[in-house]
Amino acid sequence: MKSIPKAVANRLSLYLRLLERLHGNGVLTISSRAASETLGLSDAQVRRDLAYFGTFGQSGIGYLVEELLGKVRAILGTDRAWPVALVGYGNLGRALMAYAEFPHRSFHIAAVFDSDKAKVGRSARQLKVQSASRLFTRVKQLRIPLAILAVPADAAQNVAWRLARAGVRGILNFAPVRLQLPKRVFVSNIDFTVSLEQLSFHIRHTKRKS
Amino acid sequence: MKSIPKAVANRLSLYLRLLERLHGNGVLTISSRAASETLGLSDAQVRRDLAYFGTFGQSGIGYLVEELLGKVRAILGTDRAWPVALVGYGNLGRALMAYAEFPHRSFHIAAVFDSDKAKVGRSARQLKVQSASRLFTRVKQLRIPLAILAVPADAAQNVAWRLARAGVRGILNFAPVRLQLPKRVFVSNIDFTVSLEQLSFHIRHTKRKS
Repeated sequence: MKSIPKAVANRLSLYLRLLERLHGNGVLTISSRAASETLGLSDAQVRRDLAYFGTFGQSGIGYLVEELLGKVRAILGTDRAWPVALVGYGNLGRALMAYAEFPHRSFHIAAVFDSDKAKVGRSARQLKVQSASRLFTRVKQLRIPLAILAVPADAAQNVAWRLARAGVRGILNFAPVRLQLPKRVFVSNIDFTVSLEQLSFHIRHTKRKS
Repeated sequence: MKSIPKAVANRLSLYLRLLERLHGNGVLTISSRAASETLGLSDAQVRRDLAYFGTFGQSGIGYLVEELLGKVRAILGTDRAWPVALVGYGNLGRALMAYAEFPHRSFHIAAVFDSDKAKVGRSARQLKVQSASRLFTRVKQLRIPLAILAVPADAAQNVAWRLARAGVRGILNFAPVRLQLPKRVFVSNIDFTVSLEQLSFHIRHTKRKS
């Protein structure tokens, strides 16, 4: 397989959502044109993206939904289960623990940590909150590859370092901090303000109908 | 000003973050090359994007940080204050209320609603949680243009409709639901799973050093 550019990688989740929805509705095939219209991309773009995975639509039939779904999952890595460490069990951590989408999508929270002694030992769904002082040992022992960082901004860098040293390869970061980490660790920052800015941009640039 | 493509709009937040950081550090000018290297874009891309705003770097000097910052803010609409309605005061709602980034960035939560009678009347920072039954009246009265939807999936569509009818133009949606709304209402969906998929993708496609 050719190496996949970042922009294509970002669109893979879009394709995955669409294919899962189609598959759930019993749809067997989809044309690149129908896919592109639903996703707001150009027809040529969709065909180019899918060609990266060695998948080519058949004329008059389009793409086989189930086959393509399997390929996109394999490329995204979601054809296996990923244990995730959740660090920080405040309001955000609790909301993430309850987040209904995770279980359907190959990611499951395998350990929860907090530095607050009052929270350690409490039940968090089927788990118990563990002391943040055990973070390094437990994450290493369980070989957990992914972590969600839901700690205050001033604690984020320190926790991220410990996660990286324990072998974590990817961090979903909710703290408003740019983490400095070795290159082998990927960071995905969630910044709600960016999304609000996109909304204010659209409102400002769209004529209001009265 | 020319109409701005969506991809450019998405990059505006990136430019804004960079310019704010530079400005905070007292940096006066930046070259398109330095900006592109920091942001991981091509030099030509940055120059093309900035040309949309009628801003052209001067040879040997680059762009004036403060001037460009003002322009990007004006285009994103963040040169004014945006009141935001927060709907849903569970764990996620509480985490969003405390989210340290909002106050710095032109967005402030002006009203909080929940359908749970036990929560109505409680203090939420400087506000009080209001009954969701008052949503339509209050949002309309206060002319609130933006809302954050932090309610369970099965309530999201109904609440979104009421927000749209009350005049809300943009919704930041945390519920794992595709909202059906009139075209005049923009929706920005936050899907944590997409970010986790990007991490699993990178881990799968990067050779591990032992």
